[in-house]
Amino acid sequence: MSVATCTACVLIIGNEILSGKTQDANLKFLGLELAARGIRLLEARVLRDDGPTIVEQLNECRARFSYVFTTGGIGPTHDDITAECVARAFGQPLVLDAEAARRVSRGGTIELNEARLKMAQVPRGATLIDNPLSQAPGFRIGNVFVLAGIPSVAQAMFAGIRDTLEAGPAIVSASIDVFLREGDIAAPLQAIADAHPDIEIGSYPFSRDGRFGANLVVRGVDAALVERVAREIEQRMKALGGNDAVRPSP
Amino acid sequence: MSVATCTACVLIIGNEILSGKTQDANLKFLGLELAARGIRLLEARVLRDDGPTIVEQLNECRARFSYVFTTGGIGPTHDDITAECVARAFGQPLVLDAEAARRVSRGGTIELNEARLKMAQVPRGATLIDNPLSQAPGFRIGNVFVLAGIPSVAQAMFAGIRDTLEAGPAIVSASIDVFLREGDIAAPLQAIADAHPDIEIGSYPFSRDGRFGANLVVRGVDAALVERVAREIEQRMKALGGNDAVRPSP
Repeated sequence: MSVATCTACVLIIGNEILSGKTQDANLKFLGLELAARGIRLLEARVLRDDGPTIVEQLNECRARFSYVFTTGGIGPTHDDITAECVARAFGQPLVLDAEAARRVSRGGTIELNEARLKMAQVPRGATLIDNPLSQAPGFRIGNVFVLAGIPSVAQAMFAGIRDTLEAGPAIVSASIDVFLREGDIAAPLQAIADAHPDIEIGSYPFSRDGRFGANLVVRGVDAALVERVAREIEQRMKALGGNDAVRPSP
Repeated sequence: MSVATCTACVLIIGNEILSGKTQDANLKFLGLELAARGIRLLEARVLRDDGPTIVEQLNECRARFSYVFTTGGIGPTHDDITAECVARAFGQPLVLDAEAARRVSRGGTIELNEARLKMAQVPRGATLIDNPLSQAPGFRIGNVFVLAGIPSVAQAMFAGIRDTLEAGPAIVSASIDVFLREGDIAAPLQAIADAHPDIEIGSYPFSRDGRFGANLVVRGVDAALVERVAREIEQRMKALGGNDAVRPSP
């Protein structure tokens, strides 16, 4: 169902996420930020540090979505291959960016060895994305935004590009906790969902203090309609299970 | 680089992960478990609750990887569409499984309404995956394993299928923290990585108590070689930064 026309995909690049060594924290951040900007995050992929895989999937995704955000793989070590893969995907050479070199060398106070020069190279035609935390910049080329993997740095970089992104009406949500089993609420939920094709209704079961329930989430770009559907669900759930069956979501 | 021949892909299904509402916790778990079993998790995708997307990507991934594990979307509500998508991907009808119906109804003590019957339907040819926590089973068909989204249930389901998976030599790792900047260690790391093509070396920068450093991770199936390469890196880093520059990873 379509609640916003501007779409996005996130590519999380790095073996450490797939090996289970590192818990990704960038997807949740970007999901919330993009929804607030009215951009619908339709897909994410976690890719290993493998050149052909990254090039192929980046080309597929940049054709399918309005925006692609990558995280990870832009440091100076041998396993940082995102910039060269993005360049290859766009058919552009990597070129040394003088401003990036100035930032990486902290205005000339750190020696620019070969590894640091690598962090100052971007695909021809790219524009820098500021990194206020550790200087080495990300970059944008076409509809692709290349961000760092460290969550604090990725977040600082995103703060700098947020206002350059096409904005749609923000996707808003309302959330209700229902202390009924999903198997008992599925039919009325289905009926309400069918009646509102522009609204997304999600049901997420939980077990809390020994009680079964479901967190019901209503999402859409029409805030008044989201609120109305949430109230409709609330009434229907109270009719099913009594006033005690419904709680505002914590 | 190839450290194991049995490969896997994880498909995380659910709008709640993409909206930022929910932090995924299944990928890290599966990454660790599969590595311990000697299965290389090469990719993961987070997909929205959209039938054509799930069918298309499942068919792509089950052809490319030895195993595909899906999480999420097997409950009774309207947004739970994983089972019907897997059936469509395999060209099989969904059929009511008598044993699944018995479990979902808890031996006949809970009424099997239409929503609960949905949880007892599997693609023809599938075999059930036990759910010791909340009964409603997952299932396997071909090389695809369909697990719940709730992490505790997904973990319990995986425990029941772990020993049925083809096992390879476990992928082991050694980890060292180095208090040097990545820009200063990149060249020697590259040389060591080039000398050991069967070993994966990852460098993950951090800032801890105001000191910059990198967590260096060596991975492979040959435990003795992993250990030897880790010691080689340690010696090289001490030569660069002194004994104080290296610490065992916490």
